[in-house]
Amino acid sequence: MQGSSHLLSARDVAGLLDRVRARHPRVHCITNFVAQNFTANMLLALGAVPAMTIARAEIGDFAARADALLVNLGTLDEERRAGAGIAIEVMRERRRPWVLDPVFVDASPVRRDYARHLLGERPALLRANASELAALADGEGAGDLARSSDAVVAVTGRIDRVTDGIRSVEIGNGDPLMTRVTAIGCAGTAIMCAFLAVADDPLIGTAAGLAVMGIAGEVAAGASSGPGSFAVALIDAIYSLDGAEIERRLDVR
Amino acid sequence: MQGSSHLLSARDVAGLLDRVRARHPRVHCITNFVAQNFTANMLLALGAVPAMTIARAEIGDFAARADALLVNLGTLDEERRAGAGIAIEVMRERRRPWVLDPVFVDASPVRRDYARHLLGERPALLRANASELAALADGEGAGDLARSSDAVVAVTGRIDRVTDGIRSVEIGNGDPLMTRVTAIGCAGTAIMCAFLAVADDPLIGTAAGLAVMGIAGEVAAGASSGPGSFAVALIDAIYSLDGAEIERRLDVR
Amino acid sequence: MQGSSHLLSARDVAGLLDRVRARHPRVHCITNFVAQNFTANMLLALGAVPAMTIARAEIGDFAARADALLVNLGTLDEERRAGAGIAIEVMRERRRPWVLDPVFVDASPVRRDYARHLLGERPALLRANASELAALADGEGAGDLARSSDAVVAVTGRIDRVTDGIRSVEIGNGDPLMTRVTAIGCAGTAIMCAFLAVADDPLIGTAAGLAVMGIAGEVAAGASSGPGSFAVALIDAIYSLDGAEIERRLDVR
Repeated sequence: MQGSSHLLSARDVAGLLDRVRARHPRVHCITNFVAQNFTANMLLALGAVPAMTIARAEIGDFAARADALLVNLGTLDEERRAGAGIAIEVMRERRRPWVLDPVFVDASPVRRDYARHLLGERPALLRANASELAALADGEGAGDLARSSDAVVAVTGRIDRVTDGIRSVEIGNGDPLMTRVTAIGCAGTAIMCAFLAVADDPLIGTAAGLAVMGIAGEVAAGASSGPGSFAVALIDAIYSLDGAEIERRLDVR
Repeated sequence: MQGSSHLLSARDVAGLLDRVRARHPRVHCITNFVAQNFTANMLLALGAVPAMTIARAEIGDFAARADALLVNLGTLDEERRAGAGIAIEVMRERRRPWVLDPVFVDASPVRRDYARHLLGERPALLRANASELAALADGEGAGDLARSSDAVVAVTGRIDRVTDGIRSVEIGNGDPLMTRVTAIGCAGTAIMCAFLAVADDPLIGTAAGLAVMGIAGEVAAGASSGPGSFAVALIDAIYSLDGAEIERRLDVR
Repeated sequence: MQGSSHLLSARDVAGLLDRVRARHPRVHCITNFVAQNFTANMLLALGAVPAMTIARAEIGDFAARADALLVNLGTLDEERRAGAGIAIEVMRERRRPWVLDPVFVDASPVRRDYARHLLGERPALLRANASELAALADGEGAGDLARSSDAVVAVTGRIDRVTDGIRSVEIGNGDPLMTRVTAIGCAGTAIMCAFLAVADDPLIGTAAGLAVMGIAGEVAAGASSGPGSFAVALIDAIYSLDGAEIERRLDVR
């Protein structure tokens, strides 16, 4: 182990991974066109069950079967907005977690306003990179935003930082090749959804999901010769990851 | 050979595969966003020519060039419904086969009703898993449904069962990794479309397509270390499959 | 080197590739659903920064950040048409290049008419195969079309031909497996966009992009056992391509 935290041990991460694999949580994903296939394959490799429907006529039926919901803004159209509204309402009624991934919110005021609206709808988790967080938070830090929105906030980057406004965990795992494959971040948020579906503590679930993603990225980098083979190896690594590998590589603070 | 049927020999399967490779049938696919890329690549690897347009303004022009049509309900929006209606009509006029894949019809009444409507539009083949069949058939078995709808019915699972209501074939080929990659089932139905486009007998064409898919899955499983590399190896296996491999592995009853 | 041109040396190609890698041009892609993921991954592997938004509400914001724009007609819906109109206008105002890829324009009069309209909107480059060119050009050759539209015209095939109506370059690099993977052509046009974003001369930028794509295809073919592994290896090859490989393989006239 390269770093440790009193909040998250390798045993905790491995235990939650085992739980995902045993329970096969259903993760409903409202996500962008670019990420759909890779996200579904990452969830299946993890042992979760993805569904991707966005149509307003039927998303309520799908959400009612889901253990967690992902709302990713990478593609933002009328149908997705309507579908997101319905699905979030279902999750709230059924007290299941939903997660907001405000992709490219720093590139467009339309997205920023919509993301701020969704942040008021009580996501369990907000996942953003530093630019996206800055666009959303108006100068507030991640901890302030976590407290004001009552959500866990995960700010991803070379070091991932997760906070609920009181406690926080930093995860150092990962590999630079992860920035050279599209939809890695989107799929990573879907992985966090699967962990939130089985975790008792959303901060710990989020951090465990990020650690699994980062460790799988390190394993995949060792087995690949560029971003094409890396993306393939990452799916294999998520599928094969075991407690010994997590023990060997986990880098948290 | 691990099992045999008087209806389908390894030579029959290899002969139909050769015919697909020689004729390059055009398969028009109205399919879901998650499956589009993988389906197109599987068809190209097989030697067929995919097209994926759904827009109502032009789908008639595309259908008129197609040798077979796939209607997959994995994504169900207004444009796809309108496009499907136009394309099915063109196929019927031109006496070309079309195939119904009622994905997730067990999850949503909206889909179930639409799938039942389409079943009345005379598909050459209905491909479903056991849950989807149960949602569609109201307690009828596959044979009853085949007779009442005048379609071949393929129920896929660990053992695939194909029937036209009189004759039936079971195919035991395949690998568990096929359930850990998204769109494998959807792409498999597209492969069956390509076989239907060149087969004289739709039952035999369907069974041959399923056998090729299952055998390629076995070959790919032997060459992969997880679902990521499996999906890649499956495309390679479809591309390289030869009569000797089919002879060695075909498992039909 | 297998062929040479006074217009394009291996050093020119390698120099432009280095420039793409140093400047990380943003390439905004209005492209089809089948090609989106592969195109984004090819651009990232090259060192460019892809964005894929089509929504009319925000595409103007995205285009304003882009160094080049791709308009690919593989999926043709109302939203994409509206988005294309807005984005092209932004590129024109900012004097940045945009590229037209009229996929399947030979299959549908609707597409042909729209593509002709777009050709009047001053693309920097038209990329087409021989059938698409014939459908667009009404018997004119590539050189005539280049002169009348004031665009570089690239006609891709076994030999790629690039002309601005006065000068022309032929590129012989490539591999037959490139025709067995979907979206290779679409991704190739996106690669040309990235080169146009950094090139002083659009003819040279286009030809360099085609050469890089073809050489990467040759490298990938040597490292793969079918179209599945070829597509993966192509991304790796684009990522790893160096001046020595370009020097060894460049085949231009």
